[in-house]
Amino acid sequence: MKRAYVIKIGGNVIDDEAALDTFLEQFAAVEGVKVLVHGGGKLATRMAEAMNVPQQLVDGRRITDAETLRIVTMVYAGYINKNIVARLQAAGCPAIGLSGADGDAVRAHKRRSALDYGFVGDVDAVNAFLLQRLLEGGDAVVLAPITHDGKGQLLNTNADTIAQETARALAAAYEVHLLYSFEKRGVLRDAADNDSAIPRITPAAYLELKEKGIVSAGMIPKLDNAFAALASGVSEVIIGNAGELPQLVAGTAGTRIVHD
Amino acid sequence: MKRAYVIKIGGNVIDDEAALDTFLEQFAAVEGVKVLVHGGGKLATRMAEAMNVPQQLVDGRRITDAETLRIVTMVYAGYINKNIVARLQAAGCPAIGLSGADGDAVRAHKRRSALDYGFVGDVDAVNAFLLQRLLEGGDAVVLAPITHDGKGQLLNTNADTIAQETARALAAAYEVHLLYSFEKRGVLRDAADNDSAIPRITPAAYLELKEKGIVSAGMIPKLDNAFAALASGVSEVIIGNAGELPQLVAGTAGTRIVHD
Repeated sequence: MKRAYVIKIGGNVIDDEAALDTFLEQFAAVEGVKVLVHGGGKLATRMAEAMNVPQQLVDGRRITDAETLRIVTMVYAGYINKNIVARLQAAGCPAIGLSGADGDAVRAHKRRSALDYGFVGDVDAVNAFLLQRLLEGGDAVVLAPITHDGKGQLLNTNADTIAQETARALAAAYEVHLLYSFEKRGVLRDAADNDSAIPRITPAAYLELKEKGIVSAGMIPKLDNAFAALASGVSEVIIGNAGELPQLVAGTAGTRIVHD
Repeated sequence: MKRAYVIKIGGNVIDDEAALDTFLEQFAAVEGVKVLVHGGGKLATRMAEAMNVPQQLVDGRRITDAETLRIVTMVYAGYINKNIVARLQAAGCPAIGLSGADGDAVRAHKRRSALDYGFVGDVDAVNAFLLQRLLEGGDAVVLAPITHDGKGQLLNTNADTIAQETARALAAAYEVHLLYSFEKRGVLRDAADNDSAIPRITPAAYLELKEKGIVSAGMIPKLDNAFAALASGVSEVIIGNAGELPQLVAGTAGTRIVHD
């Protein structure tokens, strides 16, 4: 089976011009079929401030009202997505940027919960057929964290979830490697030491790390998601720093979450 | 040869929610292969005002400085493009929205002229291979008037030109009908009478209309472009009001610019 990479970069990379440039150069050099899923960064918050759109937070969660949806659509699916695509083309990496509405790439529904998050989407389906068609045509696909409900409504959607659902959807056709980049160099054995990344975590090792209290509380949902991805057919999940993309891909940096 | 429509809508449609909804319903119903090229509308100007980005006009032409480019990228390639795509999907019309950077769809260079227009692009090439691949996959393609130079720079680009170059690029593979929508119901015989659209203009008729001073000065560049499109292989150019799309397609409204 052909190898495919689904790589998620967060706001910390997007907000740092130099880091983003380095990352995109390195992404361009990754061999094979690849999908880049990007988060938002601070530009949307700055835009909302500039336009006097108050940002509502309830229980630490951002509420996406109609004005905020408009801003995140502009910033994520417009500014960030198109700049990433243009720079990838410049780096010799053919790329095509999509929101979830484009080609029905990622369909979602408005979150149903006691707390009204506004225009936030929970993913129903990733269009693997479309992605495969584009990927086999030689393009890297760059996904913005904006989805749609099929009824004309755009929705703000978590980029981690889009990456996970994309990896899962591609697993029928590819050997999928799902890479989450974040600030740290991996899942750390010692939270204070960024050089203490655990190279490899199997289900058995995860149980032990949790029992011994070595994995921080903040990492547990990430790791649970990683194991859920494995359970749905993804070959491995890699967690590490975006600044080390070639090493993460080569297996010489970061943490690999694997079946065994 | 299979028929393809390249349809350009302007800001007057985009700024009018009800008109846009009607147009998109009618666009969804057009049979066959189709490309929608949209202009900008007033939202970008309103955004610039809200963000205190002064809009420079030189000789009546808007200058696209870096801040303005950021805004038009957000508004055209983000907000407008993604909302159009989401609504087309809702209307049962599979669609995929692209900027010129996506899949290298429209490549341009920064305009070279005595007056510095800033980040304005003149089109070099439309990627007919990509468009054909998407169109044959069953998607309508929705093009935003943002292009790229292949070196990582996005550029603000005239939507009429993108429509014309797209029509020309597709002419090798399809019988292309290029439709420009604007405020009036066609090329009018009497500027004061919106019901006086001339149904059909051939090159010979055009000469006569010009000689008699029947065609308004404002229409001459549009018609010259229409005849240039015909000369480059486009089958016909239709000029009329977006509110009459089914009639424009059927040939019962608007003005058709044809070879003979």
